[in-house]
Amino acid sequence: MSDGIISYFEKDRFAAFVGAKLVEVKPGYAKAMLEISDKHLNAADIVQGGVTFTLADFAFAAASNSHGQLSLSVNTTISYFRPPTGKILVAEAKEISITNKLASYNIDVFDENGGHIARLTGMVFRKKEMITSE
Amino acid sequence: MSDGIISYFEKDRFAAFVGAKLVEVKPGYAKAMLEISDKHLNAADIVQGGVTFTLADFAFAAASNSHGQLSLSVNTTISYFRPPTGKILVAEAKEISITNKLASYNIDVFDENGGHIARLTGMVFRKKEMITSE
Amino acid sequence: MSDGIISYFEKDRFAAFVGAKLVEVKPGYAKAMLEISDKHLNAADIVQGGVTFTLADFAFAAASNSHGQLSLSVNTTISYFRPPTGKILVAEAKEISITNKLASYNIDVFDENGGHIARLTGMVFRKKEMITSE
Amino acid sequence: MSDGIISYFEKDRFAAFVGAKLVEVKPGYAKAMLEISDKHLNAADIVQGGVTFTLADFAFAAASNSHGQLSLSVNTTISYFRPPTGKILVAEAKEISITNKLASYNIDVFDENGGHIARLTGMVFRKKEMITSE
Repeated sequence: MSDGIISYFEKDRFAAFVGAKLVEVKPGYAKAMLEISDKHLNAADIVQGGVTFTLADFAFAAASNSHGQLSLSVNTTISYFRPPTGKILVAEAKEISITNKLASYNIDVFDENGGHIARLTGMVFRKKEMITSE
Repeated sequence: MSDGIISYFEKDRFAAFVGAKLVEVKPGYAKAMLEISDKHLNAADIVQGGVTFTLADFAFAAASNSHGQLSLSVNTTISYFRPPTGKILVAEAKEISITNKLASYNIDVFDENGGHIARLTGMVFRKKEMITSE
Repeated sequence: MSDGIISYFEKDRFAAFVGAKLVEVKPGYAKAMLEISDKHLNAADIVQGGVTFTLADFAFAAASNSHGQLSLSVNTTISYFRPPTGKILVAEAKEISITNKLASYNIDVFDENGGHIARLTGMVFRKKEMITSE
Repeated sequence: MSDGIISYFEKDRFAAFVGAKLVEVKPGYAKAMLEISDKHLNAADIVQGGVTFTLADFAFAAASNSHGQLSLSVNTTISYFRPPTGKILVAEAKEISITNKLASYNIDVFDENGGHIARLTGMVFRKKEMITSE
């Protein structure tokens, strides 16, 4: 199933455009990473909030769909702790709670020096359909 | 000042890369827009959450920096209401509350048919420095 | 229906214990109020966050159940703007978005001098059952 | 210091009124508990959201003030996972990130059977003043 999830998310054009890649998916868990380049910077020359969000949200989507049931984000809160140092961002999504219709996830974003950049808390609505990977 | 804010945010490379443009900035207010294309879509062929967030966060950054004092987002909550129809997304950021150190904003995202796509609520920490537009 | 909603929420013992009262309910809208007394204060002698939350959450519950369909809060974000002045708090809940399964609300809390104390954004899951008022 | 924090928070009249008690405070951490009784129930006979919030927010306040520096909550997100079983609620607040001006906390609420009831994520603004415990 996890391979199916990864190949499904390879169809995400925005994640690919931004440079976010899934590196691991297992039930209730996903990890994604991104290599920082000039295009990711804001007017103050630091990584733009939309980059951090997009990477974390991508890990969140993979983790929440990892059971095969189609899951749609209904809301997400992001808190920023510090600007990243180095060239790599990693986002790890972990399931906190899951019921038939709703599930909750924490997604932590770290830089390559282990600095804790941001935390997201997100909730999904679980549809009846299964995701299809082709 | 509003022209200075717009020219300052033209240096935001990620916003430019994603296609988000500021169309109006006045004290405590900003409007941004984005033309949807294939690169903005997720694996389910709808606009990726990171696109909606990036556009809204860009309007939020402009509105919160519109007084000239450097303002950094500390956290943001996004709720998704429906997928967009049409080809244009518009985000409008409005100030709800402002004190010396902290300020809060609502950012609403609409599609070109007036559909209410998402709402963000964000808070910034206001630094002592002023933003500099050159 | 609105009278049925009000009488249903009169069974909320915690709201009654804290002193929160519904003053108006109509489809997608509710207003609640509370008279501040010594028991509502925290260690710094200002209204405790739990009081503001409880009042706002009560208006939110009434607004989200105002259509008669049982609605359960799944998450809520509260932002605090300033401590209240005077002796009365009022919370107004307004529907922002509603679908078959999910609905979103803004709830604003004001003091008797019109000061904007806090804003909540809340989401409910709408069950199939109707609420029963007796 | 932790004893000073506990005695300071004994002056919180709303927490006392609701029945929330601090059971442990150490730097960046606090645990609070509450015995559920009839007054804590809502119209559907389950623990009211305001009770869960008040308990968790109290642990959050103690943890964020545990360093002695006066800290004010600026916003908090609560996600509800399931209704509690049994008669006891416990809230544990842990520091995720701290800087000179801002700090972030996770607060988890459990019932006496270890069920994970709710998660809060909260941010405080750290003032220059120290808290005074007499």
